[in-house]
Amino acid sequence: MTVGIIMGSKSDWPTMQHTADMLDSLGVQYETKVVSAHRTPHLLAEYAESAKDRGIKVIIAGAGGAAHLPGMAAAYTSLPVLGVPVQSKALNGQDSLLSIVQMPKGIAVGTLAIGNAGAANAGLLAAQIIGTHNTEIQQNIEEFRRKQTETILANPNPAE
Amino acid sequence: MTVGIIMGSKSDWPTMQHTADMLDSLGVQYETKVVSAHRTPHLLAEYAESAKDRGIKVIIAGAGGAAHLPGMAAAYTSLPVLGVPVQSKALNGQDSLLSIVQMPKGIAVGTLAIGNAGAANAGLLAAQIIGTHNTEIQQNIEEFRRKQTETILANPNPAE
Amino acid sequence: MTVGIIMGSKSDWPTMQHTADMLDSLGVQYETKVVSAHRTPHLLAEYAESAKDRGIKVIIAGAGGAAHLPGMAAAYTSLPVLGVPVQSKALNGQDSLLSIVQMPKGIAVGTLAIGNAGAANAGLLAAQIIGTHNTEIQQNIEEFRRKQTETILANPNPAE
Amino acid sequence: MTVGIIMGSKSDWPTMQHTADMLDSLGVQYETKVVSAHRTPHLLAEYAESAKDRGIKVIIAGAGGAAHLPGMAAAYTSLPVLGVPVQSKALNGQDSLLSIVQMPKGIAVGTLAIGNAGAANAGLLAAQIIGTHNTEIQQNIEEFRRKQTETILANPNPAE
Amino acid sequence: MTVGIIMGSKSDWPTMQHTADMLDSLGVQYETKVVSAHRTPHLLAEYAESAKDRGIKVIIAGAGGAAHLPGMAAAYTSLPVLGVPVQSKALNGQDSLLSIVQMPKGIAVGTLAIGNAGAANAGLLAAQIIGTHNTEIQQNIEEFRRKQTETILANPNPAE
Amino acid sequence: MTVGIIMGSKSDWPTMQHTADMLDSLGVQYETKVVSAHRTPHLLAEYAESAKDRGIKVIIAGAGGAAHLPGMAAAYTSLPVLGVPVQSKALNGQDSLLSIVQMPKGIAVGTLAIGNAGAANAGLLAAQIIGTHNTEIQQNIEEFRRKQTETILANPNPAE
Amino acid sequence: MTVGIIMGSKSDWPTMQHTADMLDSLGVQYETKVVSAHRTPHLLAEYAESAKDRGIKVIIAGAGGAAHLPGMAAAYTSLPVLGVPVQSKALNGQDSLLSIVQMPKGIAVGTLAIGNAGAANAGLLAAQIIGTHNTEIQQNIEEFRRKQTETILANPNPAE
Amino acid sequence: MTVGIIMGSKSDWPTMQHTADMLDSLGVQYETKVVSAHRTPHLLAEYAESAKDRGIKVIIAGAGGAAHLPGMAAAYTSLPVLGVPVQSKALNGQDSLLSIVQMPKGIAVGTLAIGNAGAANAGLLAAQIIGTHNTEIQQNIEEFRRKQTETILANPNPAE
Repeated sequence: MTVGIIMGSKSDWPTMQHTADMLDSLGVQYETKVVSAHRTPHLLAEYAESAKDRGIKVIIAGAGGAAHLPGMAAAYTSLPVLGVPVQSKALNGQDSLLSIVQMPKGIAVGTLAIGNAGAANAGLLAAQIIGTHNTEIQQNIEEFRRKQTETILANPNPAE
Repeated sequence: MTVGIIMGSKSDWPTMQHTADMLDSLGVQYETKVVSAHRTPHLLAEYAESAKDRGIKVIIAGAGGAAHLPGMAAAYTSLPVLGVPVQSKALNGQDSLLSIVQMPKGIAVGTLAIGNAGAANAGLLAAQIIGTHNTEIQQNIEEFRRKQTETILANPNPAE
Repeated sequence: MTVGIIMGSKSDWPTMQHTADMLDSLGVQYETKVVSAHRTPHLLAEYAESAKDRGIKVIIAGAGGAAHLPGMAAAYTSLPVLGVPVQSKALNGQDSLLSIVQMPKGIAVGTLAIGNAGAANAGLLAAQIIGTHNTEIQQNIEEFRRKQTETILANPNPAE
Repeated sequence: MTVGIIMGSKSDWPTMQHTADMLDSLGVQYETKVVSAHRTPHLLAEYAESAKDRGIKVIIAGAGGAAHLPGMAAAYTSLPVLGVPVQSKALNGQDSLLSIVQMPKGIAVGTLAIGNAGAANAGLLAAQIIGTHNTEIQQNIEEFRRKQTETILANPNPAE
Repeated sequence: MTVGIIMGSKSDWPTMQHTADMLDSLGVQYETKVVSAHRTPHLLAEYAESAKDRGIKVIIAGAGGAAHLPGMAAAYTSLPVLGVPVQSKALNGQDSLLSIVQMPKGIAVGTLAIGNAGAANAGLLAAQIIGTHNTEIQQNIEEFRRKQTETILANPNPAE
Repeated sequence: MTVGIIMGSKSDWPTMQHTADMLDSLGVQYETKVVSAHRTPHLLAEYAESAKDRGIKVIIAGAGGAAHLPGMAAAYTSLPVLGVPVQSKALNGQDSLLSIVQMPKGIAVGTLAIGNAGAANAGLLAAQIIGTHNTEIQQNIEEFRRKQTETILANPNPAE
Repeated sequence: MTVGIIMGSKSDWPTMQHTADMLDSLGVQYETKVVSAHRTPHLLAEYAESAKDRGIKVIIAGAGGAAHLPGMAAAYTSLPVLGVPVQSKALNGQDSLLSIVQMPKGIAVGTLAIGNAGAANAGLLAAQIIGTHNTEIQQNIEEFRRKQTETILANPNPAE
Repeated sequence: MTVGIIMGSKSDWPTMQHTADMLDSLGVQYETKVVSAHRTPHLLAEYAESAKDRGIKVIIAGAGGAAHLPGMAAAYTSLPVLGVPVQSKALNGQDSLLSIVQMPKGIAVGTLAIGNAGAANAGLLAAQIIGTHNTEIQQNIEEFRRKQTETILANPNPAE
């Protein structure tokens, strides 16, 4: 296991699945778990504090609304933590984004875009982090990037 | 002690002092403490979990930015928790407000206005809560309310 | 009756029903009534002023748009008042939230999240307030909290 | 007296003075009074309900934050009510604006701009309303408008 | 004709029809016309400048997006002008609202809520303005207000 | 070719097609191409740097979210660049708008409205730019403007 | 004269001076004038309608708040119109920006950034438009661009 | 060199200096350079493309307004890129934040808070990333974290 994906509720899975899919496509191993900052705070503490010893290199946390999961995970570990603002019902994820990104000095969360794009990119950024010391993952990322560039170059006509 | 006032940083004190002042003026006992959700998460857990046994009836938490303190305090206790969004530098407390108020179903935070007015009202609401079972506090509140009404009635001329 | 639930219009009921459901599940008695700050201001004054004598301990008011009901209820009583911002059509409840939470110093409203989650949590917070002096309600809350924690612990796999 | 100017607090006077100044310059009589929706709700009811019989034709209400004064004045009278969103500290009057303008169907408030410009224009619009049946006021308005047009025409160089 | 209802496009009619319906129900005569500030600026000038002589007492203008119609109508007349922010596609009427309400000192627009509620209330406020000098309209408004109050009083149960 | 229309993804075509349609209706020649600032940055550099030599007079770039395409195109050419904020999923194009319009001093993008209206107007503005030195295009624009004015004048009844 | 710079008030000059300065530095001739959409609507019509015959190629309009000047100028001419949102007092130019950029299909305004940067860039974009058919201006722009690039390349150390 | 800190302008240095200070305090080597996405796009391409070969492990990019620097740096490298939204003049960094965080799927930027706190945390997160494979840096981070926790624990009284 090198990446831990956690989310506050099963209802976040349709978003966070894009993280898992990206990690799959880049050959990065990961685990997934429902961990709620508000409803299971002790589990969160235990999860984040033990992550490094279990071989986790990066934690990705997705949450919506008053999204405290990424910031609290970061409070319990010195591993890099990435946050995915899940699109919320009333405020479309503006609340999720601000709750995750506006961390005070001293505890950092690397925040991605609201929703599916951000979830996929959390997987990509986690792979990039791991790739700084893993040649195979690094090559997978460059292959992924090459293909996405080629797809556009090969299909320049927007109306087709 | 019947009210616990906590805040994420000493820099929140100029705001949260209005909570203390209001409780003083209403005759409600309280304690104050710096407790950071991000920098002292274990202290927060311990503080909130032990509050009821120490005789606390209401916890008031003030925080700014990605303000996780009120929601995380609520995660660790079944006492009523009130949240004060401290006015932040870049976003004027819009981030603090959304981070505090947009709690998911199952863990509640009663949120007050951004800044000093909200801090004072957190003290007032805590007193109102305590006043539901304390005649003296209840009378103090009604006296406070009566005076603030009379002050306006006695000074109707805005230009004076 | 220990909780009074009021709302500005029958169209707020699908939201405020979540308050009633939460109170039911926690064993708290309540009454519900349509009271409009704008269309029945005298009824509102009478309702809020008489609430304490009718045995009400907490008033929960839900309203949308220029949501004046919670603040005006608070103006007429010294009981604790909780406000639920109903999700509005054009602005998704941002207007409701600001109209309820940004109260001036001296009259407090404890504000919950926009929409259904906030409505449910208003019920929960009212129960927590009552629970400060009612052991049975207090135990019901702790049982509710325990169950919601266990539900997550028992279902850690988000993809199931 | 033909216009009643009310505001929630003396601190609103530096804004609302622009209403008074405009009415003075247009020859419209007015009265001013501090009336708080939250701290003097009975005074507000009495003020608005008696306004028509005292010869008031238009009520102008200025308030900031969770600005309930204009909407509640409108709830108590069938006279036209104009609302001035006073610029608030944390949110610069965005809360005041939404709290005043987003009234539900059935109770109307004609809302002006945030701050001094809106306060002056509330006086102008009140004069325009009175001017629909008062030739002298109507002429004063047209003279005011003519002068402000001429001032620009006579000073076309922005750098002078 | 005592009220002129204009709108920038036929697509605004589903909103502005609520203005017409309200005026119908209050016995106020009106005319309706498509007038675009951007596409027919000369028609707008002519319409607004001639309105008073045609017996119009109040102009109601509805527009969305960069909604210039109400403000430009006000620029061409000294009659009271009311503005209705039509709910826009991308920004839900936030652009319409700010474009209408934030008028500079010297040209006033009384702005109502975004969308249907605001459209209906524009009709109501226009009637209130006319009612200041028309006993019959005044009585119709009070009857309308009485009925809407009674409807709530007669149906207090939100769940029915 | 006198106008180059580029967009970050094929998914922007339903919006940017309105640009093409407008240019077609005004008799302006154009080319369309998918060019991504993020996924094909070298293609963007090459496209924008070579545009003038290929006879392009105006570049129109449409993009959504963190919309860097218009600003980066402008960084690589001294031709006028127009930007179209495509309506994004979570934030409805507010992110697209700010990412395009808030350019620093020294590199300019002329920004149009969010979505289809902005896309059509980008075509219109490009034609207006070309029309400053092309009588035929200029006449086509004036004919287009005349027709759109006449359409309104001929259909003044909103309810028809 | 090839560029016409207009603004709604002398108070906009400190912003719009940056437009004049940029045009000066690029060798583009221009005129400046105070023209208010709201206070001098006939002057605006006359100004915009006669601009082309006076040799104007581009109109730049700066305005704040409910900023109608750019859109109304565009309504009266087929010349390209650029809009500069002046930073407003309460809303920091968010109202100005939306009032200018959110134009409906059929009348276009190329909008620049809020405040001084946008004002300077309006001058730059106007020069780029003129440069499409003027080699000297085109060369001046490229020289300006070259210098601003070189300034950065020559000063890479941010701390110096 | 293990971290590259770039910023669009020298005016961003007072913010980005907090990144440098944090890296200094954690014992991480870094370089700093002014690189503008808009004014030196070729330098940016060259900088980002060559970063890995120069031994850079993480790029930190700070920018304000239409902040394209982080996203464009990410477009040119497969190294992890962190973005710092610099607080902008008119919109307080809301434009910077959205321009940086709302990246499309396929190119990721880990975004920190607006302003100084975000700049410091970018340094911290970069150190955490490097610390995943560097025991000394990892220990420095844990020491930093321990000290900041102890500082709070040793100073619990907010009023002191």
